Amino acid sequence: MVHIEAKLDSLNIVLPPPPTPKANYDIVCRADDNMLYVSGHLPITQEGELLTGVVGPASGGKTIEEGYHAARVTGLNIVSTLKKALGDLDDVEQIVKLFGIVNSTTDFKEQHKVIDGCSDLMMEIFGKPVGYHARSAIGTNTLPLDTSVEIEAIIRVKSK
Amino acid sequence: MVHIEAKLDSLNIVLPPPPTPKANYDIVCRADDNMLYVSGHLPITQEGELLTGVVGPASGGKTIEEGYHAARVTGLNIVSTLKKALGDLDDVEQIVKLFGIVNSTTDFKEQHKVIDGCSDLMMEIFGKPVGYHARSAIGTNTLPLDTSVEIEAIIRVKSK
Amino acid sequence: MVHIEAKLDSLNIVLPPPPTPKANYDIVCRADDNMLYVSGHLPITQEGELLTGVVGPASGGKTIEEGYHAARVTGLNIVSTLKKALGDLDDVEQIVKLFGIVNSTTDFKEQHKVIDGCSDLMMEIFGKPVGYHARSAIGTNTLPLDTSVEIEAIIRVKSK
Repeated sequence: MVHIEAKLDSLNIVLPPPPTPKANYDIVCRADDNMLYVSGHLPITQEGELLTGVVGPASGGKTIEEGYHAARVTGLNIVSTLKKALGDLDDVEQIVKLFGIVNSTTDFKEQHKVIDGCSDLMMEIFGKPVGYHARSAIGTNTLPLDTSVEIEAIIRVKSK
Repeated sequence: MVHIEAKLDSLNIVLPPPPTPKANYDIVCRADDNMLYVSGHLPITQEGELLTGVVGPASGGKTIEEGYHAARVTGLNIVSTLKKALGDLDDVEQIVKLFGIVNSTTDFKEQHKVIDGCSDLMMEIFGKPVGYHARSAIGTNTLPLDTSVEIEAIIRVKSK
Repeated sequence: MVHIEAKLDSLNIVLPPPPTPKANYDIVCRADDNMLYVSGHLPITQEGELLTGVVGPASGGKTIEEGYHAARVTGLNIVSTLKKALGDLDDVEQIVKLFGIVNSTTDFKEQHKVIDGCSDLMMEIFGKPVGYHARSAIGTNTLPLDTSVEIEAIIRVKSK
Protein backbone atom coordinates (compact mmCIF):
# COMPACT_ATOMS: atom_id res chain seq x y z
CA MET A 1 0.00 0.00 0.00
CA VAL A 2 1.33 3.40 -1.01
CA HIS A 3 0.95 6.44 1.20
CA ILE A 4 1.68 9.42 -0.97
CA GLU A 5 1.38 11.95 1.84
CA ALA A 6 4.12 10.15 3.79
CA LYS A 7 6.21 10.04 0.65
CA LEU A 8 5.87 13.80 0.22
CA ASP A 9 7.20 14.19 3.77
CA SER A 10 10.12 11.85 3.15
CA LEU A 11 10.97 13.82 -0.02
CA ASN A 12 10.74 17.09 1.92
CA ILE A 13 8.12 18.29 -0.55
CA VAL A 14 5.79 20.96 0.83
CA LEU A 15 2.78 21.63 -1.37
CA PRO A 16 1.85 25.25 -2.10
CA PRO A 17 -1.71 26.35 -1.27
CA PRO A 18 -4.20 25.01 -3.86
CA PRO A 19 -4.58 27.56 -6.67
CA THR A 20 -7.92 29.13 -7.59
CA PRO A 21 -9.29 29.73 -11.10
CA LYS A 22 -8.48 33.11 -12.65
CA ALA A 23 -11.99 33.46 -14.13
CA ASN A 24 -15.37 31.82 -14.70
CA TYR A 25 -14.19 28.21 -14.81
CA ASP A 26 -13.26 25.47 -12.35
CA ILE A 27 -9.75 24.41 -11.41
CA VAL A 28 -10.70 20.79 -12.12
CA CYS A 29 -13.66 19.03 -13.69
CA ARG A 30 -14.61 15.45 -12.98
CA ALA A 31 -15.86 13.90 -16.22
CA ASP A 32 -17.09 10.75 -14.52
CA ASP A 33 -16.23 8.50 -11.55
CA ASN A 34 -12.73 8.02 -12.83
CA MET A 35 -11.47 10.87 -14.98
CA LEU A 36 -10.38 14.23 -13.66
CA TYR A 37 -9.46 17.09 -16.00
CA VAL A 38 -7.08 19.60 -14.44
CA SER A 39 -7.16 23.17 -15.80
CA GLY A 40 -4.00 24.86 -17.04
CA HIS A 41 -1.87 25.48 -13.94
CA LEU A 42 0.79 28.14 -13.41
CA PRO A 43 4.06 28.16 -11.39
CA ILE A 44 2.98 29.83 -8.15
CA THR A 45 5.49 29.38 -5.33
CA GLN A 46 4.82 28.58 -1.68
CA GLU A 47 5.07 32.34 -1.03
CA GLY A 48 2.49 33.18 -3.70
CA GLU A 49 4.91 34.47 -6.33
CA LEU A 50 4.13 33.74 -9.98
CA LEU A 51 7.29 32.74 -11.90
CA THR A 52 7.24 34.82 -15.06
CA GLY A 53 9.30 35.54 -18.13
CA VAL A 54 10.21 33.92 -21.41
CA VAL A 55 12.65 30.98 -21.55
CA GLY A 56 15.53 31.24 -24.03
CA PRO A 57 19.00 32.01 -22.68
CA ALA A 58 20.56 32.77 -26.08
CA SER A 59 18.24 35.77 -26.38
CA GLY A 60 18.43 36.97 -22.80
CA GLY A 61 15.56 34.85 -21.49
CA LYS A 62 15.54 32.39 -18.62
CA THR A 63 17.79 29.33 -18.61
CA ILE A 64 16.61 25.74 -19.06
CA GLU A 65 17.24 25.23 -15.33
CA GLU A 66 15.01 28.18 -14.41
CA GLY A 67 12.32 26.89 -16.77
CA TYR A 68 12.67 23.39 -15.31
CA HIS A 69 12.19 24.86 -11.83
CA ALA A 70 9.05 26.71 -13.00
CA ALA A 71 7.66 23.45 -14.44
CA ARG A 72 8.37 21.67 -11.15
CA VAL A 73 6.57 24.41 -9.21
CA THR A 74 3.64 24.10 -11.63
CA GLY A 75 3.58 20.37 -10.91
CA LEU A 76 3.46 21.08 -7.17
CA ASN A 77 0.41 23.29 -7.81
CA ILE A 78 -1.24 20.46 -9.77
CA VAL A 79 -0.59 18.01 -6.91
CA SER A 80 -1.98 20.56 -4.44
CA THR A 81 -5.13 20.81 -6.57
CA LEU A 82 -5.41 17.00 -6.64
CA LYS A 83 -5.10 16.83 -2.87
CA LYS A 84 -7.86 19.41 -2.45
CA ALA A 85 -10.11 17.73 -5.03
CA LEU A 86 -9.62 14.15 -3.85
CA GLY A 87 -8.86 14.55 -0.16
CA ASP A 88 -6.37 11.68 -0.34
CA LEU A 89 -3.57 11.56 -2.92
CA ASP A 90 -3.63 7.76 -2.73
CA ASP A 91 -6.84 8.02 -4.78
CA VAL A 92 -4.75 8.88 -7.85
CA GLU A 93 -4.73 5.76 -10.03
CA GLN A 94 -2.78 7.14 -12.98
CA ILE A 95 -1.24 10.39 -14.14
CA VAL A 96 -2.59 9.88 -17.67
CA LYS A 97 -1.44 12.94 -19.58
CA LEU A 98 0.43 16.20 -19.18
CA PHE A 99 0.36 19.00 -21.72
CA GLY A 100 3.00 21.66 -21.11
CA ILE A 101 3.42 24.99 -22.87
CA VAL A 102 6.66 26.96 -22.48
CA ASN A 103 6.81 30.75 -22.93
CA SER A 104 9.72 30.77 -25.39
CA THR A 105 11.95 33.01 -27.42
CA THR A 106 11.74 31.88 -31.03
CA ASP A 107 15.30 30.52 -31.01
CA PHE A 108 14.64 28.29 -27.96
CA LYS A 109 14.11 24.63 -28.95
CA GLU A 110 14.33 22.64 -25.71
CA GLN A 111 10.82 22.83 -24.31
CA HIS A 112 10.97 19.10 -23.50
CA LYS A 113 13.83 19.73 -21.05
CA VAL A 114 11.74 22.42 -19.34
CA ILE A 115 8.58 20.32 -18.97
CA ASP A 116 10.75 17.53 -17.52
CA GLY A 117 10.54 19.58 -14.30
CA CYS A 118 6.91 18.53 -13.99
CA SER A 119 7.34 14.99 -15.37
CA ASP A 120 10.23 14.25 -13.01
CA LEU A 121 8.16 15.50 -10.05
CA MET A 122 5.24 13.22 -10.94
CA MET A 123 7.62 10.25 -11.15
CA GLU A 124 9.29 11.20 -7.84
CA ILE A 125 5.93 11.41 -6.05
CA PHE A 126 3.88 8.66 -7.69
CA GLY A 127 6.55 6.37 -9.19
CA LYS A 128 5.91 3.73 -11.87
CA PRO A 129 3.31 2.88 -13.06
CA VAL A 130 1.04 5.52 -11.43
CA GLY A 131 3.19 8.52 -12.32
CA TYR A 132 4.29 7.35 -15.77
CA HIS A 133 2.28 9.53 -18.15
CA ALA A 134 1.82 10.46 -21.78
CA ARG A 135 3.04 13.98 -22.49
CA SER A 136 3.35 16.76 -25.02
CA ALA A 137 5.58 19.83 -24.70
CA ILE A 138 5.38 22.83 -27.01
CA GLY A 139 6.64 26.39 -27.13
CA THR A 140 4.70 29.59 -27.65
CA ASN A 141 5.48 33.28 -27.98
CA THR A 142 3.33 34.39 -25.02
CA LEU A 143 1.27 33.07 -22.09
CA PRO A 144 -1.30 34.52 -19.67
CA LEU A 145 0.23 36.85 -17.04
CA ASP A 146 3.64 36.26 -18.68
CA THR A 147 3.91 32.94 -16.80
CA SER A 148 7.01 30.96 -17.84
CA VAL A 149 5.08 27.72 -18.24
CA GLU A 150 1.50 26.47 -18.16
CA ILE A 151 0.64 22.80 -17.69
CA GLU A 152 -2.69 20.95 -17.78
CA ALA A 153 -3.30 17.33 -16.80
CA ILE A 154 -5.66 14.38 -17.14
CA ILE A 155 -5.78 12.10 -14.10
CA ARG A 156 -7.41 8.71 -13.56
CA VAL A 157 -8.91 8.35 -10.10
CA LYS A 158 -9.65 5.13 -8.21
CA SER A 159 -13.29 4.02 -8.18
CA LYS A 160 -14.93 4.35 -4.79
CA MET B 1 -35.89 19.91 -15.60
CA VAL B 2 -33.79 22.24 -17.70
CA HIS B 3 -34.76 23.20 -21.21
CA ILE B 4 -31.69 24.73 -22.75
CA GLU B 5 -33.40 25.69 -26.00
CA ALA B 6 -35.96 27.78 -24.07
CA LYS B 7 -33.10 29.32 -22.11
CA LEU B 8 -31.35 30.32 -25.34
CA ASP B 9 -34.57 32.09 -26.38
CA SER B 10 -34.89 33.87 -23.06
CA LEU B 11 -31.26 35.03 -23.34
CA ASN B 12 -31.89 36.22 -26.92
CA ILE B 13 -29.10 33.94 -28.10
CA VAL B 14 -29.36 32.93 -31.73
CA LEU B 15 -27.00 30.13 -32.72
CA PRO B 16 -25.01 30.50 -35.94
CA PRO B 17 -25.29 27.71 -38.52
CA PRO B 18 -23.29 24.65 -37.43
CA PRO B 19 -19.75 24.89 -38.84
CA THR B 20 -18.25 22.28 -41.13
CA PRO B 21 -14.71 20.84 -40.98
CA LYS B 22 -12.09 22.65 -43.06
CA ALA B 23 -10.48 19.35 -44.18
CA ASN B 24 -10.45 15.55 -43.89
CA TYR B 25 -11.66 15.32 -40.27
CA ASP B 26 -14.96 15.47 -38.40
CA ILE B 27 -16.31 18.45 -36.46
CA VAL B 28 -16.92 16.15 -33.48
CA CYS B 29 -16.00 12.60 -32.57
CA ARG B 30 -17.90 10.49 -30.09
CA ALA B 31 -15.39 8.42 -28.13
CA ASP B 32 -18.09 6.34 -26.47
CA ASP B 33 -21.68 6.65 -25.22
CA ASN B 34 -20.74 9.56 -23.02
CA MET B 35 -17.75 11.52 -24.27
CA LEU B 36 -17.82 13.90 -27.20
CA TYR B 37 -14.63 15.52 -28.52
CA VAL B 38 -15.25 18.82 -30.30
CA SER B 39 -12.72 19.88 -32.94
CA GLY B 40 -11.03 23.29 -32.76
CA HIS B 41 -13.76 25.83 -33.54
CA LEU B 42 -13.39 29.31 -35.01
CA PRO B 43 -15.34 32.58 -34.46
CA ILE B 44 -17.76 32.55 -37.40
CA THR B 45 -20.61 35.02 -37.04
CA GLN B 46 -24.30 34.52 -37.81
CA GLU B 47 -23.56 36.19 -41.18
CA GLY B 48 -20.71 33.79 -41.97
CA GLU B 49 -17.86 36.23 -41.31
CA LEU B 50 -14.68 34.82 -39.72
CA LEU B 51 -13.33 37.16 -37.02
CA THR B 52 -9.62 37.50 -37.76
CA GLY B 53 -6.55 39.33 -36.54
CA VAL B 54 -4.09 39.22 -33.71
CA VAL B 55 -5.07 40.39 -30.19
CA GLY B 56 -2.73 42.85 -28.49
CA PRO B 57 -3.81 46.50 -28.28
CA ALA B 58 -0.39 47.82 -27.21
CA SER B 59 1.02 46.73 -30.57
CA GLY B 60 -1.91 47.77 -32.75
CA GLY B 61 -3.82 44.48 -32.44
CA LYS B 62 -7.39 43.89 -31.31
CA THR B 63 -8.52 44.85 -27.81
CA ILE B 64 -9.36 42.40 -25.02
CA GLU B 65 -13.04 43.24 -25.60
CA GLU B 66 -12.79 42.35 -29.30
CA GLY B 67 -10.97 39.14 -28.40
CA TYR B 68 -13.60 38.34 -25.75
CA HIS B 69 -16.32 38.82 -28.38
CA ALA B 70 -14.49 36.47 -30.77
CA ALA B 71 -14.26 33.85 -28.02
CA ARG B 72 -17.99 34.21 -27.33
CA VAL B 73 -18.79 33.77 -31.02
CA THR B 74 -16.55 30.68 -31.05
CA GLY B 75 -18.55 29.34 -28.10
CA LEU B 76 -21.80 29.91 -30.03
CA ASN B 77 -20.34 27.84 -32.86
CA ILE B 78 -19.46 25.05 -30.40
CA VAL B 79 -23.02 25.08 -29.01
CA SER B 80 -24.39 25.01 -32.56
CA THR B 81 -22.23 21.95 -33.25
CA LEU B 82 -23.51 20.30 -30.06
CA LYS B 83 -27.11 20.95 -31.08
CA LYS B 84 -26.51 19.39 -34.49
CA ALA B 85 -24.63 16.40 -33.02
CA LEU B 86 -27.03 15.68 -30.15
CA GLY B 87 -30.35 16.96 -31.46
CA ASP B 88 -31.27 18.18 -27.97
CA LEU B 89 -28.96 20.44 -25.94
CA ASP B 90 -30.51 19.02 -22.74
CA ASP B 91 -28.42 15.92 -23.50
CA VAL B 92 -25.29 17.82 -22.41
CA GLU B 93 -24.38 16.46 -18.99
CA GLN B 94 -21.16 18.41 -18.43
CA ILE B 95 -18.96 20.90 -20.25
CA VAL B 96 -15.82 19.05 -19.14
CA LYS B 97 -12.98 21.01 -20.68
CA LEU B 98 -12.24 23.99 -22.92
CA PHE B 99 -8.86 24.64 -24.50
CA GLY B 100 -8.55 28.11 -26.00
CA ILE B 101 -5.73 29.52 -28.09
CA VAL B 102 -5.48 33.27 -28.70
CA ASN B 103 -3.72 34.74 -31.76
CA SER B 104 -1.49 37.16 -29.83
CA THR B 105 1.16 39.81 -30.22
CA THR B 106 4.14 38.79 -28.11
CA ASP B 107 3.53 41.59 -25.59
CA PHE B 108 -0.08 40.50 -24.95
CA LYS B 109 -0.45 38.58 -21.68
CA GLU B 110 -4.19 38.43 -20.97
CA GLN B 111 -5.34 35.42 -22.94
CA HIS B 112 -7.43 34.29 -19.94
CA LYS B 113 -9.58 37.44 -20.24
CA VAL B 114 -10.15 36.68 -23.92
CA ILE B 115 -11.17 33.04 -23.45
CA ASP B 116 -13.57 34.20 -20.70
CA GLY B 117 -15.84 35.11 -23.63
CA CYS B 118 -16.41 31.40 -24.21
CA SER B 119 -16.39 30.36 -20.53
CA ASP B 120 -18.93 33.03 -19.60
CA LEU B 121 -21.21 31.91 -22.45
CA MET B 122 -21.12 28.28 -21.30
CA MET B 123 -22.03 29.38 -17.77
CA GLU B 124 -24.83 31.63 -19.09
CA ILE B 125 -26.35 28.83 -21.14
CA PHE B 126 -25.74 25.73 -19.01
CA GLY B 127 -25.23 27.20 -15.49
CA LYS B 128 -23.64 25.33 -12.58
CA PRO B 129 -22.78 22.50 -12.42
CA VAL B 130 -23.29 21.54 -16.10
CA GLY B 131 -21.44 24.53 -17.57
CA TYR B 132 -18.66 24.71 -14.99
CA HIS B 133 -15.62 23.39 -16.82
CA ALA B 134 -11.88 22.88 -16.56
CA ARG B 135 -9.99 25.21 -18.89
CA SER B 136 -6.66 26.22 -20.32
CA ALA B 137 -5.92 29.43 -22.22
CA ILE B 138 -2.69 30.08 -24.09
CA GLY B 139 -1.34 32.53 -26.64
CA THR B 140 0.34 31.83 -29.95
CA ASN B 141 1.95 33.85 -32.72
CA THR B 142 -0.37 32.61 -35.50
CA LEU B 143 -3.53 30.57 -36.12
CA PRO B 144 -5.22 28.99 -39.17
CA LEU B 145 -6.89 31.55 -41.49
CA ASP B 146 -5.64 34.29 -39.13
CA THR B 147 -8.59 33.56 -36.81
CA SER B 148 -8.40 35.58 -33.57
CA VAL B 149 -9.14 32.57 -31.38
CA GLU B 150 -9.55 28.81 -31.71
CA ILE B 151 -11.29 26.74 -29.03
CA GLU B 152 -11.78 22.98 -28.67
CA ALA B 153 -13.96 21.21 -26.12
CA ILE B 154 -14.64 17.92 -24.36
CA ILE B 155 -18.28 17.32 -23.46
CA ARG B 156 -19.96 14.65 -21.36
CA VAL B 157 -23.28 13.52 -22.78
CA LYS B 158 -26.17 11.89 -20.93
CA SER B 159 -26.49 8.13 -21.40
CA LYS B 160 -29.50 7.11 -23.46
CA MET C 1 -13.31 -7.88 -41.05
CA VAL C 2 -10.60 -5.30 -41.60
CA HIS C 3 -6.95 -6.23 -41.68
CA ILE C 4 -5.03 -3.01 -41.28
CA GLU C 5 -1.61 -4.63 -41.66
CA ALA C 6 -2.59 -6.00 -45.06
CA LYS C 7 -3.94 -2.59 -45.99
CA LEU C 8 -0.61 -0.98 -45.08
CA ASP C 9 1.07 -3.41 -47.46
CA SER C 10 -1.39 -2.71 -50.26
CA LEU C 11 -0.79 1.04 -49.78
CA ASN C 12 2.98 0.47 -49.83
CA ILE C 13 3.19 2.11 -46.40
CA VAL C 14 6.24 1.07 -44.39
CA LEU C 15 6.10 2.13 -40.76
CA PRO C 16 9.18 3.75 -39.22
CA PRO C 17 10.61 2.18 -36.05
CA PRO C 18 8.43 3.04 -33.01
CA PRO C 19 9.74 6.24 -31.41
CA THR C 20 10.91 6.41 -27.80
CA PRO C 21 10.18 9.16 -25.27
CA LYS C 22 12.71 12.00 -25.12
CA ALA C 23 12.51 12.18 -21.30
CA ASN C 24 10.89 10.85 -18.13
CA TYR C 25 7.46 10.07 -19.62
CA ASP C 26 5.85 7.29 -21.63
CA ILE C 27 5.15 7.34 -25.35
CA VAL C 28 1.54 6.29 -24.64
CA CYS C 29 -0.60 5.95 -21.54
CA ARG C 30 -3.62 3.70 -21.28
CA ALA C 31 -6.26 5.48 -19.20
CA ASP C 32 -8.49 2.41 -19.02
CA ASP C 33 -9.44 -0.65 -21.08
CA ASN C 34 -10.47 1.55 -23.97
CA MET C 35 -8.69 4.87 -24.08
CA LEU C 36 -5.09 5.34 -25.17
CA TYR C 37 -3.37 8.73 -24.89
CA VAL C 38 -0.52 9.14 -27.36
CA SER C 39 2.27 11.59 -26.42
CA GLY C 40 3.26 14.39 -28.77
CA HIS C 41 4.97 12.73 -31.73
CA LEU C 42 7.57 14.17 -34.09
CA PRO C 43 8.28 13.61 -37.82
CA ILE C 44 11.09 11.04 -37.72
CA THR C 45 11.69 9.34 -41.05
CA GLN C 46 12.34 5.66 -41.77
CA GLU C 47 16.05 6.58 -41.78
CA GLY C 48 15.87 8.25 -38.38
CA GLU C 49 16.03 11.84 -39.61
CA LEU C 50 13.97 14.45 -37.74
CA LEU C 51 12.25 16.86 -40.14
CA THR C 52 12.96 20.32 -38.79
CA GLY C 53 12.39 23.97 -39.60
CA VAL C 54 9.65 26.51 -39.53
CA VAL C 55 6.80 26.44 -42.10
CA GLY C 56 6.02 29.69 -43.91
CA PRO C 57 7.16 30.04 -47.53
CA ALA C 58 6.54 33.80 -47.73
CA SER C 59 9.26 34.33 -45.12
CA GLY C 60 11.73 31.75 -46.38
CA GLY C 61 10.32 28.83 -44.39
CA LYS C 62 9.17 25.45 -45.61
CA THR C 63 6.27 25.14 -48.05
CA ILE C 64 2.81 23.80 -47.20
CA GLU C 65 3.73 20.63 -49.13
CA GLU C 66 6.86 20.12 -47.03
CA GLY C 67 4.84 20.73 -43.86
CA TYR C 68 2.16 18.31 -45.08
CA HIS C 69 4.85 15.68 -45.63
CA ALA C 70 6.20 16.24 -42.10
CA ALA C 71 2.67 15.81 -40.68
CA ARG C 72 2.28 12.57 -42.66
CA VAL C 73 5.59 11.25 -41.33
CA THR C 74 4.45 12.19 -37.81
CA GLY C 75 1.27 10.19 -38.43
CA LEU C 76 3.36 7.18 -39.49
CA ASN C 77 5.23 7.45 -36.18
CA ILE C 78 1.90 7.53 -34.30
CA VAL C 79 0.71 4.40 -36.15
CA SER C 80 4.04 2.72 -35.40
CA THR C 81 3.54 3.52 -31.71
CA LEU C 82 -0.01 2.08 -31.87
CA LYS C 83 1.28 -1.11 -33.46
CA LYS C 84 3.89 -1.52 -30.73
CA ALA C 85 1.40 -0.70 -27.94
CA LEU C 86 -1.48 -2.85 -29.22
CA GLY C 87 0.29 -5.60 -31.13
CA ASP C 88 -2.50 -5.62 -33.72
CA LEU C 89 -3.66 -2.43 -35.47
CA ASP C 90 -7.10 -4.01 -35.91
CA ASP C 91 -7.57 -3.29 -32.20
CA VAL C 92 -7.99 0.41 -33.01
CA GLU C 93 -11.70 1.15 -32.65
CA GLN C 94 -11.60 4.90 -33.29
CA ILE C 95 -9.06 7.62 -33.97
CA VAL C 96 -10.84 10.00 -31.57
CA LYS C 97 -8.78 13.16 -31.65
CA LEU C 98 -5.65 14.67 -33.16
CA PHE C 99 -4.02 17.86 -31.91
CA GLY C 100 -1.41 19.24 -34.29
CA ILE C 101 1.00 22.11 -33.71
CA VAL C 102 2.88 23.64 -36.64
CA ASN C 103 6.22 25.46 -36.20
CA SER C 104 5.22 28.61 -38.09
CA THR C 105 6.45 31.98 -39.23
CA THR C 106 4.04 34.60 -37.92
CA ASP C 107 2.72 35.35 -41.42
CA PHE C 108 1.82 31.70 -42.07
CA LYS C 109 -1.92 31.02 -41.67
CA GLU C 110 -2.54 27.58 -43.20
CA GLN C 111 -1.74 25.20 -40.37
CA HIS C 112 -4.88 23.20 -41.22
CA LYS C 113 -3.42 22.33 -44.64
CA VAL C 114 -0.24 21.10 -42.96
CA ILE C 115 -1.96 18.89 -40.37
CA ASP C 116 -4.04 17.40 -43.22
CA GLY C 117 -0.92 15.30 -43.88
CA CYS C 118 -1.69 13.35 -40.71
CA SER C 119 -5.49 13.41 -41.05
CA ASP C 120 -5.35 12.13 -44.63
CA LEU C 121 -3.01 9.31 -43.56
CA MET C 122 -5.39 8.20 -40.79
CA MET C 123 -8.28 8.16 -43.29
CA GLU C 124 -6.17 6.24 -45.86
CA ILE C 125 -5.22 3.58 -43.31
CA PHE C 126 -8.33 3.27 -41.15
CA GLY C 127 -11.10 4.68 -43.40
CA LYS C 128 -14.53 5.79 -42.17
CA PRO C 129 -15.72 5.59 -39.47
CA VAL C 130 -12.60 4.34 -37.59
CA GLY C 131 -10.21 6.96 -38.95
CA TYR C 132 -12.63 9.89 -38.93
CA HIS C 133 -11.47 12.01 -36.01
CA ALA C 134 -11.98 15.33 -34.23
CA ARG C 135 -9.02 17.65 -34.73
CA SER C 136 -7.42 20.94 -33.85
CA ALA C 137 -4.53 22.57 -35.69
CA ILE C 138 -2.63 25.57 -34.39
CA GLY C 139 0.59 27.44 -35.12
CA THR C 140 3.41 28.34 -32.76
CA ASN C 141 6.68 30.26 -32.95
CA THR C 142 8.87 27.35 -31.82
CA LEU C 143 8.81 23.61 -31.05
CA PRO C 144 11.14 21.14 -29.30
CA LEU C 145 14.26 20.27 -31.35
CA ASP C 146 13.00 22.68 -34.05
CA THR C 147 10.65 19.96 -35.30
CA SER C 148 8.34 21.22 -38.08
CA VAL C 149 5.23 19.69 -36.52
CA GLU C 150 4.21 17.91 -33.33
CA ILE C 151 1.01 15.84 -33.11
CA GLU C 152 -0.64 14.07 -30.18
CA ALA C 153 -3.60 11.70 -30.35
CA ILE C 154 -6.40 10.07 -28.37
CA ILE C 155 -7.35 6.58 -29.55
CA ARG C 156 -10.24 4.31 -28.60
CA VAL C 157 -9.22 0.67 -28.42
CA LYS C 158 -11.46 -2.39 -28.74
CA SER C 159 -12.35 -4.11 -25.47
CA LYS C 160 -10.71 -7.50 -25.05
